[in-house]
Amino acid sequence: MGVEKLGVMTSGGDSPGMNAAIRAVVHTAAQYEIQCFGIRLGYKGLIEGDVLELETKDVRNILHRGGTFLKTARSDKFRTFEGRKKAYENIQKYKMEGLIIIGGDGSFTGAKVFGSEYDIPIIGIPGTIDNDIYGTDFTVGYDTALNTVVNVIDKIVDTATSHNRLFFIEVMGRDSGFIALNSGIATGALDILIPEKDYTLDKLFSSVERGSNQGKSSRIIVVAEGKKLGRVYALAKATQIKFPYYDIRVSILGHVQRGGNPSCYDRVLASRFGVEAVEALLHGKREVLIGIRSGKIIFTTFEEAIQKQKEINKDIIKILDVISV
Amino acid sequence: MGVEKLGVMTSGGDSPGMNAAIRAVVHTAAQYEIQCFGIRLGYKGLIEGDVLELETKDVRNILHRGGTFLKTARSDKFRTFEGRKKAYENIQKYKMEGLIIIGGDGSFTGAKVFGSEYDIPIIGIPGTIDNDIYGTDFTVGYDTALNTVVNVIDKIVDTATSHNRLFFIEVMGRDSGFIALNSGIATGALDILIPEKDYTLDKLFSSVERGSNQGKSSRIIVVAEGKKLGRVYALAKATQIKFPYYDIRVSILGHVQRGGNPSCYDRVLASRFGVEAVEALLHGKREVLIGIRSGKIIFTTFEEAIQKQKEINKDIIKILDVISV
Amino acid sequence: MGVEKLGVMTSGGDSPGMNAAIRAVVHTAAQYEIQCFGIRLGYKGLIEGDVLELETKDVRNILHRGGTFLKTARSDKFRTFEGRKKAYENIQKYKMEGLIIIGGDGSFTGAKVFGSEYDIPIIGIPGTIDNDIYGTDFTVGYDTALNTVVNVIDKIVDTATSHNRLFFIEVMGRDSGFIALNSGIATGALDILIPEKDYTLDKLFSSVERGSNQGKSSRIIVVAEGKKLGRVYALAKATQIKFPYYDIRVSILGHVQRGGNPSCYDRVLASRFGVEAVEALLHGKREVLIGIRSGKIIFTTFEEAIQKQKEINKDIIKILDVISV
Amino acid sequence: MGVEKLGVMTSGGDSPGMNAAIRAVVHTAAQYEIQCFGIRLGYKGLIEGDVLELETKDVRNILHRGGTFLKTARSDKFRTFEGRKKAYENIQKYKMEGLIIIGGDGSFTGAKVFGSEYDIPIIGIPGTIDNDIYGTDFTVGYDTALNTVVNVIDKIVDTATSHNRLFFIEVMGRDSGFIALNSGIATGALDILIPEKDYTLDKLFSSVERGSNQGKSSRIIVVAEGKKLGRVYALAKATQIKFPYYDIRVSILGHVQRGGNPSCYDRVLASRFGVEAVEALLHGKREVLIGIRSGKIIFTTFEEAIQKQKEINKDIIKILDVISV
Repeated sequence: MGVEKLGVMTSGGDSPGMNAAIRAVVHTAAQYEIQCFGIRLGYKGLIEGDVLELETKDVRNILHRGGTFLKTARSDKFRTFEGRKKAYENIQKYKMEGLIIIGGDGSFTGAKVFGSEYDIPIIGIPGTIDNDIYGTDFTVGYDTALNTVVNVIDKIVDTATSHNRLFFIEVMGRDSGFIALNSGIATGALDILIPEKDYTLDKLFSSVERGSNQGKSSRIIVVAEGKKLGRVYALAKATQIKFPYYDIRVSILGHVQRGGNPSCYDRVLASRFGVEAVEALLHGKREVLIGIRSGKIIFTTFEEAIQKQKEINKDIIKILDVISV
Repeated sequence: MGVEKLGVMTSGGDSPGMNAAIRAVVHTAAQYEIQCFGIRLGYKGLIEGDVLELETKDVRNILHRGGTFLKTARSDKFRTFEGRKKAYENIQKYKMEGLIIIGGDGSFTGAKVFGSEYDIPIIGIPGTIDNDIYGTDFTVGYDTALNTVVNVIDKIVDTATSHNRLFFIEVMGRDSGFIALNSGIATGALDILIPEKDYTLDKLFSSVERGSNQGKSSRIIVVAEGKKLGRVYALAKATQIKFPYYDIRVSILGHVQRGGNPSCYDRVLASRFGVEAVEALLHGKREVLIGIRSGKIIFTTFEEAIQKQKEINKDIIKILDVISV
Repeated sequence: MGVEKLGVMTSGGDSPGMNAAIRAVVHTAAQYEIQCFGIRLGYKGLIEGDVLELETKDVRNILHRGGTFLKTARSDKFRTFEGRKKAYENIQKYKMEGLIIIGGDGSFTGAKVFGSEYDIPIIGIPGTIDNDIYGTDFTVGYDTALNTVVNVIDKIVDTATSHNRLFFIEVMGRDSGFIALNSGIATGALDILIPEKDYTLDKLFSSVERGSNQGKSSRIIVVAEGKKLGRVYALAKATQIKFPYYDIRVSILGHVQRGGNPSCYDRVLASRFGVEAVEALLHGKREVLIGIRSGKIIFTTFEEAIQKQKEINKDIIKILDVISV
Repeated sequence: MGVEKLGVMTSGGDSPGMNAAIRAVVHTAAQYEIQCFGIRLGYKGLIEGDVLELETKDVRNILHRGGTFLKTARSDKFRTFEGRKKAYENIQKYKMEGLIIIGGDGSFTGAKVFGSEYDIPIIGIPGTIDNDIYGTDFTVGYDTALNTVVNVIDKIVDTATSHNRLFFIEVMGRDSGFIALNSGIATGALDILIPEKDYTLDKLFSSVERGSNQGKSSRIIVVAEGKKLGRVYALAKATQIKFPYYDIRVSILGHVQRGGNPSCYDRVLASRFGVEAVEALLHGKREVLIGIRSGKIIFTTFEEAIQKQKEINKDIIKILDVISV
């Protein structure tokens, strides 16, 4: 509705499918004859005026590529009033009438503050491998990360089985166990340690023991990284003391989880989000996060999305106990 | 509630994740101390008594494998009264008190008839790459097939771009365009031809022309196979006549689409279906298909599942026109 | 040795790793402060003057990408004296003192004629998935194509096994069976039909029968496409008539074989070829093809490379008979 | 010549393709009507009598699988005279007239001692991802590991580029830099640190600086693990102190490098080695390692293979300096 110029950026940690989302924004803008600016390096670039015009030819051949060609960063300056002031000056300079931000929780917290201080409509697209954003069943990049993790664990299972070893595998997920829970189910883990589920060493030991009694030759424990990095080492060590004859190893998957060509699901999801984000701006929406629920596009205010915590699927936790036996 | 023996089989076309579903059935049965029989080759094996007992050790190391280790087949005999009689005799012989069938529409039609003639509770698990089953958002194998198709098209795009070629790519989907639509969106297809959407040659030609005007170097048309195999050749030929200077090629993806290690999503989905199918039997459910909607398990009677047609997501069709420009 | 400007092009069919070779040429030229021109679309582009300067920044992020960003084409005009004259005029226009051509047999035949008519040193880099070039153990793209073919056949084996089907799989290789032989060994094919090895229907039938007697559930016959496309259909049909109860299917892999990110081997090989090609020009070499033998770089004149036929490894043919049993 | 029974085992670290080698041994033995025994868990299993008969049906569907279904282990007991005595008693018990050992340097050292003490012909098949065995251009598993490493680094490059980060990546290779050198070339590393090549922090810093000056957005340093694990952390820390404004991360690839389905090359290589190893026994060869050189099968005595050190390809080290600029 009268939007003639808009900006798009990626912010926070990168995730596979961000490029597909940018491409969809650019194509949709072109369709409505809206001029589209790409802001490099997230809020940092907005503050520093690192802005380039994007036409459809600029987003060719990026649909299937991991990462984000607009690059991304975290910005301490944007947490300051001065920083946001400079950011808004660049918005005025380029006459942007709307902003689309692809990122995670931190990015939307920044967007909420920014939107309350300045008159700029903002639409958020959830892009993070952690899937820990309220207001959407799935975030862009999560499905790809799951498949990457599962493929890596499958390979580790090959060697674990060949050596009768027990592996503790740490996957990403600071505050949430989405990746750990689903990848653990998908790889037949003996146990899965996630922030959403209490555990004790005794329970962990009984899982390990059970696997051993059944003569399972591949024994994997999947651990969400949690707030304290490296706790996987402590767990492995405690288990080694309890079971001195086991050959126990640790593997921390690390940054590989963020990369890779996006899966089909992530490409389609990102494309839908990109199209709908532009249309939301045109329909006067602002300060909302776009999401998907049961295949339908939904919107949630930044406020609600930030305050509420997305719950992990209890049904899946439940089946873990049945299946891992 | 009192089930002591059950049978599980795969039927119809195979799909990745079927093994994960079987494994979950076997593990859940073991948990409830139910004896579990695997029936090989679907209804054919049930008629011929091709039955083996399955313990958890028998389903080790299959979670991540494509295909179905119980094998699958189509059975003409099961369409006859005589065939179904023999099948029931084997059910009596093994004292099965419930049957879990992993398959597609045709399999559930057979199950419905069988369940109306004989007193055997049956639970269906939707397993097909086509995703064309009413009563569930996703079928087991569909997500994997999408990723396989997208990976193959990505490779074809490499060579198409290097040669400035236009490719017509035929993917599976006899009555439904789920694979074609989503893989086409995910690979930046110029146009997508699916059963659910009318097309004319003129519309196709204008898509091709538009891609050319934009100087797109990779030009892909994705076509669902439809009822008449090979129509992709007719389309390519007509396009070649209209655009004689184009270098047009055809690629039919074929059986590769059915294989491959299941994706994380399919492994988790199949595992959930397997657990819940056994529990449904225990709770006295019968002649229902298990499904997933917005992450929750749901049930639909075979009757409803067979009669109703699953609709393709109109929103995704809509964005095609925006994004492919 | 006084080379100040050189040109590089890709010609003929594309193959994975061509981008890595171009990148290595550009980097090596930069190292020696040689100006490097990229010629788009092979000889066609040379005739039409489709030339761009290439600096190292222009070849960033292409090392791992399939296809060729310089694009490739076949050129009928280059077969004419007039065409080659125009090509040489462009070489003079850009003052190129050397030309590096990445391609296959046809490209080097053109190079030989061109080099005999005009004073321009040419170095050839063998780039083709078929591996059918004399003067090198391996061509750029061959190893990647093998892995692509094997991955696709692995997936087909999943579904073949699930259905007890026999598959005839046609792979690329017009005059040579390198891909068919190696991918067939790697996937446990019952038989492999290649141009270098006589076969009779009787021999084929006995392979099929043998597989059946052994109760093999996956039965694959790999066929090199050969000169007459579609002969795989005739073979399948004849086999079906002989074994009417078999469920026989055909799969033609097609263009997927040309695409995909290059394997590690192809990236390293292409990089070595690119570096050594520039150094060969500097050392005054001309009209030679670069190659690798036992890990060492070797050179062969275009004349010899074109006249002689690369022989397939007889040892590998021999083990087929042992292993497929 | 008169061998009627033989044994096959995998020993030391597992590597992809070991299954393909076992399969080839079993098939070749069957062809010559030799009874074949599989020894589980390497020398440990030989000492403990963990032996099973292997027929062709037992090695179905393993050709494409990572790891080793015979499992592998290291055995301290085999270093003792008493241990080897028990091992030989089991060889006598099963009347094995030859032994095929698939493994690495340590395994062949054991084989040499064993062969000097007891009258049992032994043939070695080089199976290790490190490629550090004298007497063969390639070991079984090396090519697969290279591709795994390259795929993982490609993914890390996605995220590195998105964040302008510098990554230190540690890959396997205790005494040799084969994996580091080749994967580094294949992923465009700024520098590669391997045991075979001296380095100083100053040289490393200048590589880092050069990458920065060229505005490279993806900056990767690949480090062979070397004798002291974790030295990658020290390197990263020193670099961080020198370049305080860089965002530097470390990634240790770990056990994923051992797993995965073998590449086409490894499957064919392993199959050839398996066939030729049996034939070598039949021809009276003993205490030799089988190898490949320029596509031909060669044999080296254990003594020579153990004493000599395989040299890394100097040409590839040379091109690193040219290409990484």
